[in-house]
Amino acid sequence: MRKGNTEQLKIFGAGSNVCKFCRIIRREVESYVVFEDDASFAFLDHRPLFPGHCLLVPKEHCKTLIDLPYALITPLFTNARLIAQAVEEGIKAEGSFVAINNRVSQSVPHLHIHIVPRRRGDGLKGFFWPRQTYKDKDSILKVQKDIKSAISEIQSRLGRFMN
Amino acid sequence: MRKGNTEQLKIFGAGSNVCKFCRIIRREVESYVVFEDDASFAFLDHRPLFPGHCLLVPKEHCKTLIDLPYALITPLFTNARLIAQAVEEGIKAEGSFVAINNRVSQSVPHLHIHIVPRRRGDGLKGFFWPRQTYKDKDSILKVQKDIKSAISEIQSRLGRFMN
Repeated sequence: MRKGNTEQLKIFGAGSNVCKFCRIIRREVESYVVFEDDASFAFLDHRPLFPGHCLLVPKEHCKTLIDLPYALITPLFTNARLIAQAVEEGIKAEGSFVAINNRVSQSVPHLHIHIVPRRRGDGLKGFFWPRQTYKDKDSILKVQKDIKSAISEIQSRLGRFMN
Repeated sequence: MRKGNTEQLKIFGAGSNVCKFCRIIRREVESYVVFEDDASFAFLDHRPLFPGHCLLVPKEHCKTLIDLPYALITPLFTNARLIAQAVEEGIKAEGSFVAINNRVSQSVPHLHIHIVPRRRGDGLKGFFWPRQTYKDKDSILKVQKDIKSAISEIQSRLGRFMN
């Protein structure tokens, strides 16, 4: 297993020497692993929102979702789907919460997908409230225009398929 | 544009007559659209956590991430990456929050990815605290075993590639 892991890391990058999650992937730091394949690694968060809270990370060190190479999108999110289902079934939860913090509130600068079992009345609901409202229609249109412009600019900069 | 949209929906499914997001996609209900392609649709949440909060949805009606067809994983999450970057650049945010509620806290039963601009000190940090700790090592091992068993069971049920 160790040997296989090392061989995979030769393919997918040895990662950072200082990054905590790269060290977990290399098994230099102990974790409770729930899943591993060529591209990704999942383990229990040691301070869970609720028991069963997993972190799914790409083996290749990248900081945020925005830095994730195109080739890793399918394997990583196929596994996110798998682990969300497994957390729900394994913990007998009523639902799940899948979340990524990019930079702000991101404790370790190695992309990680939180996959958290949810139950009704578990106390997390409050997070999504209170919401704001936009001041007026002009402020909505301004935000819409800014995001649409940014999308066009990114697409022309990086190419249609964002590889 | 309308015509193209209708043609795309013939390919990707006309959606539900009662689902609010299917109606938004068909433009029967007004929204502030920021992005659309063959497989997905993104618009401003009308009650944002912060201005610029987008919802990205697959055009094909599916309830949760777990129900998302394999063929839609790449287009949907490639666009999630794009829109996270565009929200950060367009709104000049310091980071972003990308989240999916499966069933619990899910207001509309059509998979939607929240993409929210973040700034340090914006007040959302509290959500990820307080965390719990596991009672003891046995309770960690129990949860690990339950999730690993569920992963194996799902994989054997659905096949290696989860199509």
